[in-house]
Amino acid sequence: MPKINAERLLSDLRRFAQFGAYRTGVHRPTFSQEDMDSRHWLAQQYDAVGLQAHIDGVGNVFGMPRTERRSLLIGSHAESQNYAGWLDGALGVIYGLEIARTFAGTQDRAGLPIALVAWADEEGHYVPMLGSRSYVGDIDEAEIDRAVNVDHGLPLRDALRAAGLAGVPRSLAEPGRHIGYLEAHIEQGDVLEASRKRIGVVTSIVGIWQYSIVFHGLQNHAGTTRMAIRRDAGLAAAKLATTIADCFPKAAGPRTVWTTGRITLEPGAPNIIPGKAEMLFQFRDSETLVLERLDALLRTLVEEVAIKIGCRAEIERTETGKPWHMDPAFQQAIENAAARQTPGAHMRMPSGASHDAQVVARKIRAAMLFVPSIGGISHYWTENTDDADLILGCQVLADAAEMILRGESR
Amino acid sequence: MPKINAERLLSDLRRFAQFGAYRTGVHRPTFSQEDMDSRHWLAQQYDAVGLQAHIDGVGNVFGMPRTERRSLLIGSHAESQNYAGWLDGALGVIYGLEIARTFAGTQDRAGLPIALVAWADEEGHYVPMLGSRSYVGDIDEAEIDRAVNVDHGLPLRDALRAAGLAGVPRSLAEPGRHIGYLEAHIEQGDVLEASRKRIGVVTSIVGIWQYSIVFHGLQNHAGTTRMAIRRDAGLAAAKLATTIADCFPKAAGPRTVWTTGRITLEPGAPNIIPGKAEMLFQFRDSETLVLERLDALLRTLVEEVAIKIGCRAEIERTETGKPWHMDPAFQQAIENAAARQTPGAHMRMPSGASHDAQVVARKIRAAMLFVPSIGGISHYWTENTDDADLILGCQVLADAAEMILRGESR
Repeated sequence: MPKINAERLLSDLRRFAQFGAYRTGVHRPTFSQEDMDSRHWLAQQYDAVGLQAHIDGVGNVFGMPRTERRSLLIGSHAESQNYAGWLDGALGVIYGLEIARTFAGTQDRAGLPIALVAWADEEGHYVPMLGSRSYVGDIDEAEIDRAVNVDHGLPLRDALRAAGLAGVPRSLAEPGRHIGYLEAHIEQGDVLEASRKRIGVVTSIVGIWQYSIVFHGLQNHAGTTRMAIRRDAGLAAAKLATTIADCFPKAAGPRTVWTTGRITLEPGAPNIIPGKAEMLFQFRDSETLVLERLDALLRTLVEEVAIKIGCRAEIERTETGKPWHMDPAFQQAIENAAARQTPGAHMRMPSGASHDAQVVARKIRAAMLFVPSIGGISHYWTENTDDADLILGCQVLADAAEMILRGESR
Repeated sequence: MPKINAERLLSDLRRFAQFGAYRTGVHRPTFSQEDMDSRHWLAQQYDAVGLQAHIDGVGNVFGMPRTERRSLLIGSHAESQNYAGWLDGALGVIYGLEIARTFAGTQDRAGLPIALVAWADEEGHYVPMLGSRSYVGDIDEAEIDRAVNVDHGLPLRDALRAAGLAGVPRSLAEPGRHIGYLEAHIEQGDVLEASRKRIGVVTSIVGIWQYSIVFHGLQNHAGTTRMAIRRDAGLAAAKLATTIADCFPKAAGPRTVWTTGRITLEPGAPNIIPGKAEMLFQFRDSETLVLERLDALLRTLVEEVAIKIGCRAEIERTETGKPWHMDPAFQQAIENAAARQTPGAHMRMPSGASHDAQVVARKIRAAMLFVPSIGGISHYWTENTDDADLILGCQVLADAAEMILRGESR
């Protein structure tokens, strides 16, 4: 098995974190100067390792092998959330680079067809998963025309022009071009840490079902309206959130998660009974059956609460994410590699977060490897992972890649 | 007893509603052109009825009798909430005018010393109860210097200058100047309507105790953070609101009201567990003992919820309004007048809303009369009251005023 260069890996990760350095993390939003600088740096590294580098029309950086043979694509996304962690997507991008270098540096592996990618805008500063969706042919020009930055409203077209990408074609995955896709990522949760494991073999990426729930009550004076006749939309929203907390555990799967991220009361004045309340609610699970069961339960609870508080309820599902199962043979390759490198310290687990791998998996066999997040912290500048785990994760992914390329995983 | 002129009363109410007319209501914010036009119109009417009219340095319109004798002050506020009802404060202002005209028009009552007032900014476009607080000496220049419009931020000083009031002195109630103060108002609730009564004799104006309650939890990823380790500040806020709904009825008085007017979750994104939640909460009662009991209960509930959800809680009381009891002899005068005009169709009741009368009552004996609000609607342009109730209310107030002035209420 190929031995990766641990010093070079850590040094590259640290070098990459200088693009948009913020405290111990990074602030590298998609198509910012720092992000584009990091992408051009990556293209140089891809070239230097003997790959054919290019940046496509939505900012994806590719390093393609100079061969017609089907290649194994390795990578993740290069940009960060605002003022967030240094690893997140960068980890998987630099792992790919290190694996390519390792393979290129040993005679008998130099010919193994590795392709590298750094996707653009998985984090959704403009469009979540923009780069991977573009590569699998799941985005059209009209959607790109419409997209604007969620923070400052700059149209995506203007951002692409400023990044020098206007008129550059978008690369598309031709059928049969890739053997598969491997992505490493920090776990972003504390399951590995709490389980005292060092490698997560991702079994599936959860589906996210998201809802806008609106209660319409009766706006009125908070001083002169008797309690008995109130139809308080805010109370209905609060009641729904607590009823969900009471009832979901019985219907949920062992790893289901659910979150009320926003509650907005109108008009929102201290002396007015809210006439309208809106809740943003979501749940995630890797089993469609569980998602469907929770959807039905949610609709029942919304109706019950509305009747109880005397409000009219509207519920709209705004997102119906399909759970994606990772390729079984690739999972096995990662597990076998982990078992060799760190016996007993690996586990299979679903991913509660979204990743480019779930988009790529629609067209290409795909799998993911997780390394632990210290304290489960993610999307925050204090995010971190032990150096020893960073090194181990890359070694396991390299071993798995070789197994897959040599056909040992079939 | 003096017979008011019902046609003149309704005509004046309708004339006054033309200042800032909006659908069937009015939009007449304090110191707007429409508001100042209405105040100059009032000053003309006060003059025409033989009173000495002036507008003071905060926009209060006074009509003072041309005599040294102690007078009975009658009035309410002239401005409206934004896009709100035509009666609200205007009702009590026009009632005063009609009573002064009625008295002036009959030989034996022309000498009864009535003073009229139209207060400025009870509704708090700049400072709630600005005019009445100024008259009883409860506001200083520094507070006026600091005040800005809640909607558009214009400094109060600039608004006063634009209204032609810069440098105009503020009138102060000299001790002994007034026998007392009477204010009529629409009920703004549905107690009279639900009780099939036509006149409310206000016993007290409730105290409002208002709170900012903040829960600090742990902000985290909504997909990767297991339910078991969450410390969801938003859930804590929802739990508190529903626990209050469960527990307050047992501790509250028969007319206590409580309201959660605003819930704000941070960061408020659908895919992030809220790390912070703020609630604006208030309750109102006319008994200090009840207010104190609810304060203690609230603090216990906040603590229990915080422990249960694993959050840290902060609770700050931002308003500690004292309940004000209306003058017993004046209440009796209004009740006697009501009993004569509409036997059995009157009731004593606290006011759940704030009024200038609670400010005036700090220095001057004060009482209030309510007329029914159709459907309990208030602070909305559809607010209304039956013509027959409008006429009856004015007649009862006129009778009560005469009783008080003739010393029959002592």
